Amino acid sequence: MIDQLIEKIKKTKAPIVVGLDPMLEYVPKHIKTKAYARYGKTLEGAAEGIWQYNKKIIDAIYDLIPAVKPQIAMYEQFGIWGMQAYEKTISYCQKKGLIVIGDIKRGDIGSTSQAYATAHLGNVRIEDQEFSPFHEDFATVNPYLGIDGIKPFIDVCKKENKGLFILVKTSNPSSGDFQDQMLEDHRHLYELVGEKVAAWGMELMSGNYSDVGAVVGATYPEQGQALRKIMPKSYILVPGYGAQGGRGKDLIHFFNEDGLGAIVNSSRGIIAAYLQDSYSQYGPEHFEEASRAAVLAMISDINGALEAGI
Amino acid sequence: MIDQLIEKIKKTKAPIVVGLDPMLEYVPKHIKTKAYARYGKTLEGAAEGIWQYNKKIIDAIYDLIPAVKPQIAMYEQFGIWGMQAYEKTISYCQKKGLIVIGDIKRGDIGSTSQAYATAHLGNVRIEDQEFSPFHEDFATVNPYLGIDGIKPFIDVCKKENKGLFILVKTSNPSSGDFQDQMLEDHRHLYELVGEKVAAWGMELMSGNYSDVGAVVGATYPEQGQALRKIMPKSYILVPGYGAQGGRGKDLIHFFNEDGLGAIVNSSRGIIAAYLQDSYSQYGPEHFEEASRAAVLAMISDINGALEAGI
Repeated sequence: MIDQLIEKIKKTKAPIVVGLDPMLEYVPKHIKTKAYARYGKTLEGAAEGIWQYNKKIIDAIYDLIPAVKPQIAMYEQFGIWGMQAYEKTISYCQKKGLIVIGDIKRGDIGSTSQAYATAHLGNVRIEDQEFSPFHEDFATVNPYLGIDGIKPFIDVCKKENKGLFILVKTSNPSSGDFQDQMLEDHRHLYELVGEKVAAWGMELMSGNYSDVGAVVGATYPEQGQALRKIMPKSYILVPGYGAQGGRGKDLIHFFNEDGLGAIVNSSRGIIAAYLQDSYSQYGPEHFEEASRAAVLAMISDINGALEAGI
Repeated sequence: MIDQLIEKIKKTKAPIVVGLDPMLEYVPKHIKTKAYARYGKTLEGAAEGIWQYNKKIIDAIYDLIPAVKPQIAMYEQFGIWGMQAYEKTISYCQKKGLIVIGDIKRGDIGSTSQAYATAHLGNVRIEDQEFSPFHEDFATVNPYLGIDGIKPFIDVCKKENKGLFILVKTSNPSSGDFQDQMLEDHRHLYELVGEKVAAWGMELMSGNYSDVGAVVGATYPEQGQALRKIMPKSYILVPGYGAQGGRGKDLIHFFNEDGLGAIVNSSRGIIAAYLQDSYSQYGPEHFEEASRAAVLAMISDINGALEAGI
């Protein structure tokens, strides 16, 4: 699966992924009004609103980017209807040719992890038929439970040609609470997790890179540089660009010398671009055009930094 | 919320929780046949099957126990319909007077963690109305992202009188991959996480215990003993009893001297008791009676160990 992502990154010349993390407050009034008129001011109405909002954004940007990363929490908060909007968003993106990274951060053990892997990357068997409930192409996974939690995901990835991004060093201010702990052998915990990701990924190579990637926040460029070396074959999914403070020039060390190896996520900065001063001229009526402009600016920022830096 | 759980534990004299983690293979044929006849051999049919299976079990055991712990992964694998069965199970258990611990192991950062907390423990506002999508009473949470990931859950718990169980030392064989790492200051990572859980819990005391509890596996009694001392005010949710290998006598050190402080989970051992040799006389037609017998045996095993040990 990583080879398909790389192909799309090369084709679009855009090592970026757009985070589809809709908050109800981002959805312009004209979309919400229509959704509420049809389904009421209910979970169903809200879910319809975020789905229509996503659809407009996807239509406006799909030709520029290789992938999207819907954040399932933003859908889960609208219950069953939200989960339906999540699945519809995934289907729609895939129809538009986009690779979908489900930002689900699941992680459990044994048969439970297997159930998550099945739900998101695999097929569940019901008597003589198989169904793929959420059918993302990649999923993010939490490593706290160790290899027992990861192995079922790796097995499904092998079988179904899917991929993972395992949390290594997250972008948030307190990611250091545990991830930065110095171990007795003078490695940080995130370095150990990175080493494990590199090792686990060896059995899932697809071309020069592994289907087992890692999440490392843009907000930690030094750690990114160290982890890039620890996991040379792992693609790094880099959140924290834009709204969380990361900029293009902070990102060059997340990439390998082949210009590959990282894909940078922006969520709010793209999908809610029309709420920023710099894109306010579009107004809520043309929010999707603001998103397109923000995607173009992000591609230019990152490619500019890469050209200057590598 | 922990005071309500303690009250129910005292009333039932049963420091146990039944894990509602239905696998399709556990569901007896007569239930599946009926579900498929109505909804087809589909995700909807499978979800109906696990819901009817749960309902029978709950009807048979609700008067014996204080709480249930549905494992959301087992429902998520049946997509939207599975999530609906999850919510129906929660509602039904709450109507029966049971406390519901959502085993969701979510964990993310900032607004995303807030969305999860809202989905599972809180209320989402849609214009002038509020909805509580999954309305569990407690949720399990993954700490890998640090306090940023936990704080939104704590805030929702404060507001809505709910509780958490934070993963500290999980029951699986490879839980040591990261959790057992020895830190530079000669503590294990799980000890540090336990200290943080204790500290985070101080602001959510409800009686002698905190609404912020911890997950520590029955399969690690020594670590359980150490963590019991590190987190004296935190209730410990103990998975790994029965099918995973833990027994009553391994569990006494998870409890405090007041006989409280721990609640032991069994899933497969209860809900699929009829598949075990020792309960095979019930047969698939009376699976729920096998579950009741298994609950009684578990209560007796644990109370026996507690009486002998404390």
